[in-house]
Amino acid sequence: MAISNHKTKFKDLSNTGFGANSSAEGGRLVNPDGSNNLRKTGLPFYERISVYHSLLRMNRFKFAMAIFTFYTAINLFFAVIYFTIGVDHLSGIDVNHPFMVRFLEAFFFSSQTLTTVGYGHVAPSGLLTNFVASTESLLGILAFAVVTGLIYGRFSRPRAYIMFSNNIIVAPHKGSRALMARIATYKNNHLTDAEAQLTVALHVNEDGRMITRFYQLPLEISKVTSLALSWTVVHPINEDSPIANYTAEQLKDAKMEVILSIKAFDDHFSNTVQQRTSYSHHQLVYGAKFEPMFERAPDGNYTLLELDKISHHSLVPLEDRANLN
Amino acid sequence: MAISNHKTKFKDLSNTGFGANSSAEGGRLVNPDGSNNLRKTGLPFYERISVYHSLLRMNRFKFAMAIFTFYTAINLFFAVIYFTIGVDHLSGIDVNHPFMVRFLEAFFFSSQTLTTVGYGHVAPSGLLTNFVASTESLLGILAFAVVTGLIYGRFSRPRAYIMFSNNIIVAPHKGSRALMARIATYKNNHLTDAEAQLTVALHVNEDGRMITRFYQLPLEISKVTSLALSWTVVHPINEDSPIANYTAEQLKDAKMEVILSIKAFDDHFSNTVQQRTSYSHHQLVYGAKFEPMFERAPDGNYTLLELDKISHHSLVPLEDRANLN
Amino acid sequence: MAISNHKTKFKDLSNTGFGANSSAEGGRLVNPDGSNNLRKTGLPFYERISVYHSLLRMNRFKFAMAIFTFYTAINLFFAVIYFTIGVDHLSGIDVNHPFMVRFLEAFFFSSQTLTTVGYGHVAPSGLLTNFVASTESLLGILAFAVVTGLIYGRFSRPRAYIMFSNNIIVAPHKGSRALMARIATYKNNHLTDAEAQLTVALHVNEDGRMITRFYQLPLEISKVTSLALSWTVVHPINEDSPIANYTAEQLKDAKMEVILSIKAFDDHFSNTVQQRTSYSHHQLVYGAKFEPMFERAPDGNYTLLELDKISHHSLVPLEDRANLN
Amino acid sequence: MAISNHKTKFKDLSNTGFGANSSAEGGRLVNPDGSNNLRKTGLPFYERISVYHSLLRMNRFKFAMAIFTFYTAINLFFAVIYFTIGVDHLSGIDVNHPFMVRFLEAFFFSSQTLTTVGYGHVAPSGLLTNFVASTESLLGILAFAVVTGLIYGRFSRPRAYIMFSNNIIVAPHKGSRALMARIATYKNNHLTDAEAQLTVALHVNEDGRMITRFYQLPLEISKVTSLALSWTVVHPINEDSPIANYTAEQLKDAKMEVILSIKAFDDHFSNTVQQRTSYSHHQLVYGAKFEPMFERAPDGNYTLLELDKISHHSLVPLEDRANLN
Repeated sequence: MAISNHKTKFKDLSNTGFGANSSAEGGRLVNPDGSNNLRKTGLPFYERISVYHSLLRMNRFKFAMAIFTFYTAINLFFAVIYFTIGVDHLSGIDVNHPFMVRFLEAFFFSSQTLTTVGYGHVAPSGLLTNFVASTESLLGILAFAVVTGLIYGRFSRPRAYIMFSNNIIVAPHKGSRALMARIATYKNNHLTDAEAQLTVALHVNEDGRMITRFYQLPLEISKVTSLALSWTVVHPINEDSPIANYTAEQLKDAKMEVILSIKAFDDHFSNTVQQRTSYSHHQLVYGAKFEPMFERAPDGNYTLLELDKISHHSLVPLEDRANLN
Repeated sequence: MAISNHKTKFKDLSNTGFGANSSAEGGRLVNPDGSNNLRKTGLPFYERISVYHSLLRMNRFKFAMAIFTFYTAINLFFAVIYFTIGVDHLSGIDVNHPFMVRFLEAFFFSSQTLTTVGYGHVAPSGLLTNFVASTESLLGILAFAVVTGLIYGRFSRPRAYIMFSNNIIVAPHKGSRALMARIATYKNNHLTDAEAQLTVALHVNEDGRMITRFYQLPLEISKVTSLALSWTVVHPINEDSPIANYTAEQLKDAKMEVILSIKAFDDHFSNTVQQRTSYSHHQLVYGAKFEPMFERAPDGNYTLLELDKISHHSLVPLEDRANLN
Repeated sequence: MAISNHKTKFKDLSNTGFGANSSAEGGRLVNPDGSNNLRKTGLPFYERISVYHSLLRMNRFKFAMAIFTFYTAINLFFAVIYFTIGVDHLSGIDVNHPFMVRFLEAFFFSSQTLTTVGYGHVAPSGLLTNFVASTESLLGILAFAVVTGLIYGRFSRPRAYIMFSNNIIVAPHKGSRALMARIATYKNNHLTDAEAQLTVALHVNEDGRMITRFYQLPLEISKVTSLALSWTVVHPINEDSPIANYTAEQLKDAKMEVILSIKAFDDHFSNTVQQRTSYSHHQLVYGAKFEPMFERAPDGNYTLLELDKISHHSLVPLEDRANLN
Repeated sequence: MAISNHKTKFKDLSNTGFGANSSAEGGRLVNPDGSNNLRKTGLPFYERISVYHSLLRMNRFKFAMAIFTFYTAINLFFAVIYFTIGVDHLSGIDVNHPFMVRFLEAFFFSSQTLTTVGYGHVAPSGLLTNFVASTESLLGILAFAVVTGLIYGRFSRPRAYIMFSNNIIVAPHKGSRALMARIATYKNNHLTDAEAQLTVALHVNEDGRMITRFYQLPLEISKVTSLALSWTVVHPINEDSPIANYTAEQLKDAKMEVILSIKAFDDHFSNTVQQRTSYSHHQLVYGAKFEPMFERAPDGNYTLLELDKISHHSLVPLEDRANLN
């Protein structure tokens, strides 16, 4: 039978970093955003998490909220301390003001100290209050240093800014067929020496046991010197292809998962960047071809890359499977 | 005919990242400054642009203007708020001052808050004004963090500081001829392990269809261990050259474009740097040689590299084409 | 005799960067945390130490203490100066206050100047005091710049976040036996293209002289494309193994030390990271196997990596040594 | 004659990045500190210099002086402006003070604005003065951002911290002789995968013309996996050595210059670092051997690396030259 030749002909990748024991792994291996679909236990949360990197990857709005919340919390904390010592040690605050007003005045004094704006119309007078204020302004400076580091870290975090087509398709290709996905950079960055790697995971029944087999899919072109326009990554489904003998249905049965990984040198960051995605069998379109996504500009002086067309494909008939063997 | 042997003899590069369909691309592929001559559409502007990197690459004057404009705009924004709440909540501002003066005083209070200078001769008094001032000083600190990140990013952005000769020339070389361009670093940086890559794009009529063909041009020396002085990148036009059978006129007809890309390790940044340029057929000088650009210093103790001579060349006759075949 | 064939069969590594003269080296070569077990002399302390990197690697608590201590010391220093000049040059301080109070007020003025909070209820009045305050505020800004750099440096220092099993074991493996250690990343980072290198150091008596011999131990898999789950690094003890003819006792006698070094590309930092550990012969377990440390999540949708199990192993009998030869 | 075989036997390196025309180059090629011995002309000074990197490489004391000078200059500049507008627009300054005192008060107000300490006992009152103060505080924040960037850049600039022996020696080696230099890292950093490259430049008379010939000198070990202790870089002077037929005198006559370049991965910076030096023929010691520079610590628990011994060598007789051929 066709599929059984896998054991002999194609070298299984044992160096993928995933396990081969299907029953020990759950669901897809890699999420569409490229992260591994796993959770770690056995260490306290704060040891399993890099707070810095979580803050770097947090979306912009959440990050702003986090800072604002932190700022308010610190000010509340110090406001309580100043209030407990007594607002009579904050010159400029009228001790006859109502409770809430006095507390808010302590809160605002705290914010003036934390940000080092220090107008001085309210100022610490007793030694204890002075000590707390002195500590708070140091803390403010340190917090600011942290925020500066975070913001710079967010800016300068090397990213590939690659967009992937939503689907992976099987298209007619040079008289036979090929597995294709399409990528493009969507920012004004420029990738050079871009390398693609396509790995397939198939869950197969071997001697009655479910095994996950990994194969590297050979690419027609696996490295481009410049990723200026779009790049259609092409795996020809010929006799060298580990999936040559799989029908569309068999690929779905084997819960095919295709991991596409791109590594390149980015000129924005002068750094190596890496991005990957994963296509589950639900994202496979069997019998389609990508539509062109770049064209000459109307005035003929430059090329136009239409990013919204990255996933555009039209269904086309494939040649008979017989032709493949 | 001479040119037709291209299909068979020279391997066309399909991995340049550019398309082969001439009619889909417009104008030159790469601009002289090394950027790709293309525009992206289909995504909102802010998703297509890396604001951070645009600010890093902006020229110094524009960057200073951008900061100054931003500073003024923010202060105007908060001045309007303080003014709307009422300057009577800013102690130290005389409410009897004329409209414009009061507004400007609110503006200057805003600037004192944003920069955290906070003299205090003007200070917030009501709760609402205090809240706005507290928010503004936080914003000031964050804006400052952003500016610090931007300025450091501008400083530390790895750059090769390579200057290229204005022209690419065809010069006599070892009894035959060669295509040459010259480069040098113009700052006090030092590149090691510098690699050059020369790619030619030719628009050819193949079976009645305009096709863009890409060839890598083999170099006499493609890697130098140290780019101390100038480096003349030399592609010998011999039997291994894809352009051996092209006359000067034919190169122009084929809208020859030569992309010269340099990758090296820079000791300033301890990082890999990359720079490229593109020569259109208008920049080709057929029959010329570069003049020396370095010489012994008058006192004999060091070498003098004359950067203004990088493009200096003198016209020289080439040997008969017959010699080439 | 078995061990003597080492001289002929296995190539000793002379490029380990360690010396071969056993009598010139003391104790283990590499500490469990991966640092070299050596001290440098002959240069003043401050030239042998990178203060910046020591502060980067200091633990969080010590680092906070260092900053707080430095802050207090600087303020004391300037308080003494302001006090020496005379607190009558600090408007806002009552010269009739007791000695200690006046000194503390000078101290707090210093802290308000250093952090640039500058309330202004105390302000410098004479020229000398003004000059000192002006210098202190500059110093404050510089100190803050240093702290910002340190904090960002601590955040952004590329680290592999790899945990190693506590023991290196000899386990049954494909009908023979193998030397194994296990690693996993314990943070939410993701390593790709991870390479392992296993080096063994053996102290052997050669012609009556103690010599340290280094051998690279060949690995079954020395590179994984993705370090998602755990990775058991496996050196098969077959005829190609430099330790094939050593019994457990002989390994202890030779003071076996195994250095495991991992180099990978980290997606958090977009940088190459490196981490290593060293196993002394006390950490060798002869006849054991690692227990599984990942499993399918209860709901079947993801994989669970149990970090606390990284060192879990159970004792198992090994096949007879006779089988090995 | 011996030396003439160079033209045929040894491949001259034409890819060193230096020129071959001896008469166009002056003095040594590389300075002992690793910089190229050349000067660039033909561009304005500020285009030839990277100000940022010059400030990074400046010594600590000069850097501090540069900042202090800059701070004073900016304050003088603004003091002149405030003074010209009139100190009556600075509330808190007594207009009846003598000229010099008023000027200094304006100077100190400027420093309080630039550092954003802003006590407020002196504060701007007119609109023009307010505008200048507002601009100055912005400038202060920007200057501070620049200084933060510079200080972080100085800290984090990847450096190899390698010390080289003062001399390059010719020592007896395995029955013949070898050219040797010694290196060690002198900080608490750790280099891995260190590669050495030894290049010799010889000025030879060829057909009556002085030519600079470059040869790569093959090393016994050119890469070590860990540069923990010292490393003696060894070029065996055997039949494969381009300098085999040169006597000590001939090497001096040929103005031998040996460039030793080290490239390694540093664990402090997680970055590739590079350092090189150059030995002129004056630094060649013909007939010597390096003395050991590491030993077992007195308590036997670690190794002691004695950095002050890096250049220690003792003179030893070499075997007869006849043995070499």
